[in-house]
Amino acid sequence: MLSQVSPAFQFELIAQDGNARAGVFHTPHGDILTPVFAPVGTQATVKAVSSRQLTELGASLILANTYHLYLRPGSDLIAEFGGLHQFMNWHGPILTDSGGYQVFSLSSIRKVDEDGVTFRSHIDGSTHRLTPEKAISIQEQLGSDIIMAFDECPDPYDPKYNQKAMERTHRWAERCLAAQTRRDQALFGIVQGGVFPDLRARSAEFISSLGFPGHAIGGLSVGETKEEMHAMLEVVTPILPADRPRYLMGVGSPEDLVNGVLRGVDIFDCVLPTRLARHKAALTMTGRINLLNSVNTRSQSPIEEGCQCYTCQHYSRAYLRHMLVAKEILGATLISIHNLHVLLELMRQARQAIIEHRYSAFASNFLENYRLP
Amino acid sequence: MLSQVSPAFQFELIAQDGNARAGVFHTPHGDILTPVFAPVGTQATVKAVSSRQLTELGASLILANTYHLYLRPGSDLIAEFGGLHQFMNWHGPILTDSGGYQVFSLSSIRKVDEDGVTFRSHIDGSTHRLTPEKAISIQEQLGSDIIMAFDECPDPYDPKYNQKAMERTHRWAERCLAAQTRRDQALFGIVQGGVFPDLRARSAEFISSLGFPGHAIGGLSVGETKEEMHAMLEVVTPILPADRPRYLMGVGSPEDLVNGVLRGVDIFDCVLPTRLARHKAALTMTGRINLLNSVNTRSQSPIEEGCQCYTCQHYSRAYLRHMLVAKEILGATLISIHNLHVLLELMRQARQAIIEHRYSAFASNFLENYRLP
Repeated sequence: MLSQVSPAFQFELIAQDGNARAGVFHTPHGDILTPVFAPVGTQATVKAVSSRQLTELGASLILANTYHLYLRPGSDLIAEFGGLHQFMNWHGPILTDSGGYQVFSLSSIRKVDEDGVTFRSHIDGSTHRLTPEKAISIQEQLGSDIIMAFDECPDPYDPKYNQKAMERTHRWAERCLAAQTRRDQALFGIVQGGVFPDLRARSAEFISSLGFPGHAIGGLSVGETKEEMHAMLEVVTPILPADRPRYLMGVGSPEDLVNGVLRGVDIFDCVLPTRLARHKAALTMTGRINLLNSVNTRSQSPIEEGCQCYTCQHYSRAYLRHMLVAKEILGATLISIHNLHVLLELMRQARQAIIEHRYSAFASNFLENYRLP
Repeated sequence: MLSQVSPAFQFELIAQDGNARAGVFHTPHGDILTPVFAPVGTQATVKAVSSRQLTELGASLILANTYHLYLRPGSDLIAEFGGLHQFMNWHGPILTDSGGYQVFSLSSIRKVDEDGVTFRSHIDGSTHRLTPEKAISIQEQLGSDIIMAFDECPDPYDPKYNQKAMERTHRWAERCLAAQTRRDQALFGIVQGGVFPDLRARSAEFISSLGFPGHAIGGLSVGETKEEMHAMLEVVTPILPADRPRYLMGVGSPEDLVNGVLRGVDIFDCVLPTRLARHKAALTMTGRINLLNSVNTRSQSPIEEGCQCYTCQHYSRAYLRHMLVAKEILGATLISIHNLHVLLELMRQARQAIIEHRYSAFASNFLENYRLP
């Protein structure tokens, strides 16, 4: 039996269409209408975009990275400000990850043992240790609305190691629950298991049994194929309790979002839109555009006709290309605004389609017209 | 006798206090309340700041550089958009320089002759030629509200060469007037003459006699001392007609603005506030601050107590320092916003002081409290 979820973190299911869900997730810093895309603010800023611009974009939830903020400027410093909301001037909901993924992907000299992980900072090489208890304590200092259990994210193709890592992740999940002291934060458990359906099912069952107010699916979009990602979602989401939000970590691209919603996911995050922007690429509802392409040199068109974002309402492709060629910072800002708008708007449209019970047609139509990169 | 100024470019003198003036300069894209500081948007963007942020800052006039825009993206491309206002999404007044200063400061292999200047692009080494007629034609393509005569800006300490360059600048000024075809742009003449009072006086007299709707003082803040700059202003401004605006080109710092207004200057521009921001320094009403300084590591104070800018209203020094240390673009944006606010606000306060006939006390008080860098 699941434990009672605090009323502060109620998830209301508004509509279901096939496996796709439209909901409202209540948090102390505001409601999150799902499905939702969360822009990533790794170092306490969504890169090149201000809080005011995020608000204008209609962003509700943003993500920040525990690993980065713990190392710099330090979670104790952020706690002195009363938490991340005050420090970074974002007064809507914030989700922090546990640092687990970054410890395994960014740092060097990792020593994993039953108790935790010892690693070296990617910034200055200094040695640090994260344990489930420490990861929760840091996230309590950060004061985010949604916090994540500490997990291990291994190579998705190694069956033996995935079983071992999954079982440890399960023990760490229990320790995270026991370590939590704040009641104004929703702690999500994380399902692991690589590309192995039996491991994924076992993990979803175990994590679901612990009474978390929400559940995350980790270890995807880390090198496996799209088909494998879809297959894992199809194993996991039917097991996760329907009355709690489901978060697919670090995903993704427009097509991944549409496919994820189709398989019952509610929350997504990814650096893709802002990273692409800094690499001169724009997202549209039908594919990616390289703005440096010479066809854009004299183009008076916006990135995407009909787009309602600030950038498309005020700037041409020629101007944006000029910003990129001239290496002007404003280029990254304006293209980030547009790219974030595309994913936020895609999820708003998906939500409406679910409510109107036409999501399947919406998804097919989107995927048919979207040129994969 | 001065020629009639188009009503579109009337300069109304609202108040005078000593030599300090408060006025309104009417332009086709709006009124400019003087004295005024113009943020610099060299490549058709004020670096790291959006048009909306400039509007929120209360900027009225911005400057763009003809030399840069002619080379990239090309003034013909900008003309296809209907001009710079449309291209860069800035619908207030714009001033463009003539390219003269940049040809002498940025390009290599300059050949100056009576007709014009041949130079190499700092971008790709390609050879170009600017003449008075060409400089006007490019600025007519750009469509700025205030355009500048083509001038030569020599080493301010060489008396012989300054006389020669000044006389050529005078002949070029006449050619610029003759070349102008658009009536919706105010062409300003430029006074030169290095640090030589006699040359400056002759130049001010000659340029004033040509009937320009406004006058610029060029060739200052290029290596001479502050005392020399002040002395030159004291020679020039009494000669310039009182019913037309006076623009001190490429100046400057807070103390230069206060001293310039004291000597009868109405318009200023400078890259200083945005350049300092990208070099991690903040301006305040009492001096400069290095935000990287470790005293700011945990500081919950804004850059300047009481400052009404967006940055100071929402962000701490500790956050800004974190942005700089973490090399986040938002740092440059937020500090640029503050630094621009300081100079815009300083000119708003100066205007009010002039209207209330207390500018002399305002200036003394400011200069006494301002720690020079």
